[in-house]
Amino acid sequence: MRMYDIIDKKKNGMELSTEEIREMIKAYVEEQIPDYQMAAWLMAVYFQGMNNRELKDLTLAMAHSGEMIDLSPILGIKVDKHSTGGVGDKTTLAIAPIVAACGEKVAKMAGRGLGFTGGTIDKLESIPGFVTGLDQQTFFDNVNRIGLSVIGQTANITPADKKLYALRDVTATVDSIPLIAASVMSKKLASGSDKILLDVTCGSGAFMKTLEDAVKLAEIMVAIGEQAGRETIALITNMDVPLGETIGNALEVKEIIELLQGNAKEDLKEVCLALASNMLYLAKHGSNKNITLEDCRKMAEEKIQDGNAFRKLKEMVTSQHGDVEAIENTDKLPKAEYYYEIVADVGGYITSMDAKQCGMASMILGAGREKKDSEIDFGAGIRLLKKTGDSLEVGDTIATLYSNSYETFKEAEKILRSAYKIGREVSQKEKLIYARVTKEGITYY
Amino acid sequence: MRMYDIIDKKKNGMELSTEEIREMIKAYVEEQIPDYQMAAWLMAVYFQGMNNRELKDLTLAMAHSGEMIDLSPILGIKVDKHSTGGVGDKTTLAIAPIVAACGEKVAKMAGRGLGFTGGTIDKLESIPGFVTGLDQQTFFDNVNRIGLSVIGQTANITPADKKLYALRDVTATVDSIPLIAASVMSKKLASGSDKILLDVTCGSGAFMKTLEDAVKLAEIMVAIGEQAGRETIALITNMDVPLGETIGNALEVKEIIELLQGNAKEDLKEVCLALASNMLYLAKHGSNKNITLEDCRKMAEEKIQDGNAFRKLKEMVTSQHGDVEAIENTDKLPKAEYYYEIVADVGGYITSMDAKQCGMASMILGAGREKKDSEIDFGAGIRLLKKTGDSLEVGDTIATLYSNSYETFKEAEKILRSAYKIGREVSQKEKLIYARVTKEGITYY
Repeated sequence: MRMYDIIDKKKNGMELSTEEIREMIKAYVEEQIPDYQMAAWLMAVYFQGMNNRELKDLTLAMAHSGEMIDLSPILGIKVDKHSTGGVGDKTTLAIAPIVAACGEKVAKMAGRGLGFTGGTIDKLESIPGFVTGLDQQTFFDNVNRIGLSVIGQTANITPADKKLYALRDVTATVDSIPLIAASVMSKKLASGSDKILLDVTCGSGAFMKTLEDAVKLAEIMVAIGEQAGRETIALITNMDVPLGETIGNALEVKEIIELLQGNAKEDLKEVCLALASNMLYLAKHGSNKNITLEDCRKMAEEKIQDGNAFRKLKEMVTSQHGDVEAIENTDKLPKAEYYYEIVADVGGYITSMDAKQCGMASMILGAGREKKDSEIDFGAGIRLLKKTGDSLEVGDTIATLYSNSYETFKEAEKILRSAYKIGREVSQKEKLIYARVTKEGITYY
Repeated sequence: MRMYDIIDKKKNGMELSTEEIREMIKAYVEEQIPDYQMAAWLMAVYFQGMNNRELKDLTLAMAHSGEMIDLSPILGIKVDKHSTGGVGDKTTLAIAPIVAACGEKVAKMAGRGLGFTGGTIDKLESIPGFVTGLDQQTFFDNVNRIGLSVIGQTANITPADKKLYALRDVTATVDSIPLIAASVMSKKLASGSDKILLDVTCGSGAFMKTLEDAVKLAEIMVAIGEQAGRETIALITNMDVPLGETIGNALEVKEIIELLQGNAKEDLKEVCLALASNMLYLAKHGSNKNITLEDCRKMAEEKIQDGNAFRKLKEMVTSQHGDVEAIENTDKLPKAEYYYEIVADVGGYITSMDAKQCGMASMILGAGREKKDSEIDFGAGIRLLKKTGDSLEVGDTIATLYSNSYETFKEAEKILRSAYKIGREVSQKEKLIYARVTKEGITYY
C-alpha cells in the first residue's frame, strides 16, 4: 500500500478496498503517513465522497484505532444517544433519567463544548461536586445499580478520530458529510452500546444547515451503524432556534429540573419526549415486537408525571458525588453576579433567529469555550424570553444576559440583537422534528 | 490572511484575490504555511480550478519567489522554447542552432530528465567535455557573440515552484492543468526571455493524454504569458509515438547531427521546422509585420541546407568546452558496450505505440533516471527501426537496444514489446502537429 495511490484513487472517484482503508488509518495513527498526504486525501474525499461500504470500513478502522469499550458487565440492552451539536441542546440531561426510570440502561460517554455549541459534561459539572471522570468499574456499577451514568470520554478512545479531526480543523475539511458521519459513528461504536439514537440537528445553529444535508448525514450514519451490527435510528431536529428557554450550563440544568418537575417549555418537552421514546423503542422492541413509539412516549410522559424521572436524575447526581441539594433547590446552582436585559426597540413579530449567533453571544458571556483550554463560567448564559413566532412590543424584554464579567454585555447584546429578525408579519412556528430515519427508510413529519 | 480561509474559499469555488495569492506563496516559501495546509489547497485547486486572473497572479508570485533573470545584457529579442516533456524529444538541440543561424538570440535554461522523459541538459552533457553550468556573464557573452547558449537552470530560480512541485509529487496533485501551467510559466517568466514558444506534447508519452487537455493547457499558458507581457505561442505536437528514431542521450545527439547535415527522419524534421519557424516568427514579426510563418520556415530550411545551422551547433559546443571532434565524427560520442536486437515474431502492421513504455524501457537500459540522483549511461538507449504505420514481417528488426549492462536487456525487451500493438490492417500515420494556439485563437491542422 502506497498512500500516493490511495490519494490518487480517491481523487479519481475510485472505490478504496477494505484493506487499503484499514492500512491507511493504522499507518496514519502510527505516524507513518505524513499530515500533508492525509490532508490531500481528506480534500479528495470532500469532493468525491465515499460509498457506504468504504464508510463502514473507515468508521470501523477509526473505532478500532483505540480502546473498544466492552459494556457487557452491564446487564441488559444499552442504548446510546448522540447529538450532532446545537445551542441550548440540553436534552441528554432529561432523556437519560426518563429512559432509566423506564427500566432501561443508559451508559453514556459525553463531550465538552467548543465555540458556539455546549457540551453535556460542562452542564453536569455546573452541579456542585459532580464528578464526570469515574473509573470504568464505578461507571458499570452505577449503571447496573441505578440505570444511568454520564461520564467524560476516556482519553484512549478513537485516537484516529482525534488526529483526523485536528487535521480537518486546519485544512477546511470539517464540513464533509461522510467524514462527519465516520467521526461520530467511530466514537459511538467504540463506546460499546448495543443501540444508537442519533439526534441530527439542522438549521442555523447546527453543522447541517439544510434538511437535505441533514437527511444525507442521518442516512449515512444509520447505514454505518446497521452495517456494524448496531441498530441505529436518527431523528432530524430543528436547530434554527435554540432549544428551550436557556443557553448556559447551570441555566440549562435548572431548565431540565423544571421539565422533570412538569414545568417545561413546549418545544423542549416535545423534543425530549421524541428522543426518549425512540431510545425506549430501540431498547424494548427487540423483545416486544408489538410495542409502538406511541406506547414508549406514554411511558416517558408517565415517568415525568409520577416524579420517577426526576428521582433518577437525583440518584445519578448522588452517585457521581454531586450536591443533590442544588437539584432540589436550584438557588444553590452557580449563579452569575450580573444580569442585563435586552429590551425591544421596535415592535412586530420575530420572523427568524440565528441560533449560532445566540450561541456565540452566550460564549462571550463566559458560558462557552473560545479555545479548547478556555475556562467556563457555569452561571453565565442567556434566558430567551422571546423566540421565533412571538409578537413583540417596544419595551418588551427579549432576553436576559447573565455573566460574571459585566464588560461582556455590550458585545453579547450586539451579537444577540443581530441574531433576531423582526418583521411585520406573523411567521409560523417551524417544525421541531423534521424526520425519522431508520434502516427501513425516512418518515417526514 | 489566514490559510484556512484561502483553502475554504477555493474549496467552495470562490475566486482568490491577487493579495491572497501573493501572500500565500510568500508565506509558503518562508515556511509560515505548513505542507498539510498547502496540500489541501492543491487538492481543492485540482477540483475547482483557477481562472486566468488567479493563474496569472499565482504564476507571477511563483516567478518572483526567487531570482528574476535579467537578459537585457543580451542584445536583441530573446526567444525561449519549452516542451512539456516527451520521449525522444530532442528538438531543442536542432532548433537553437537553426534559430541562431537565422540571426536571432537563444538564451535557454534547460532541465534534466526524470522517469520516462529525457532532458536537454543530459543530452548535451553526453558530448564529451560539454559544460552546462556556465556563470551568467559567460552565458550572456556567448549568446551575444554566437547567438546561442543552453545551460542548466540556476538553483535560485522559482523556489516556490520547487517546493510546490515536490509536494504535488507526493500528494497526487501533479496532473492539474492550472498547476502545470503555473509551474511551467513561472520558470519561463523568471528565465527572462521576451517571447516564449511552448511545445505542448500530447499522447501516450506526454502528461496530456488527450487533445482536449493539451488545448486547455496551451490556452491557459498562452493567456498567462500574454497577461504577463510576454508574447507566447503554443504548438500542440504528437507524442503518441517517440519523436524520431532514437531515445537516449548520445543516440539523440547523433540523430540531431544527422538532421543538421540534411539526413533526417521525416517526423523529426517536420516537428523541428515547425518549432523553429514559430520561434523565428516570434522573434521577427514585431519589426517586420509582413513576415509569414511560411517565410520563417523557408529561412530555417535554408540554414539546414547551407550548413549554417550545423556550424552554429559546433560553435555552441566549442563555446561550452565540448569536444567538437565528437560532433564532426559521431563515433567519438559515448557508445554502449552491448546491443540487442528485438526481432518481430509476428507479421502485420504496427497500429499503435505507447511512447511512455518506450521511455521506460530506455530508462531501464540506463539512459534515464529512476530517481533524481540516479546516474545516467550516456551511450544507452533505443533505436526504433519500426514505428506506427510501418509494416512488419517475421524476422524484421523492430528496434535495437543499447546498454552497458546487458542484464537490463530482458526487462527492457519485455516493456518495449508491450509498447507495440501489431494488427492486420494498415493504420494511418497520425498528425505530427495538431494545433497552434496564439492569443488570437486556435488553428487546428
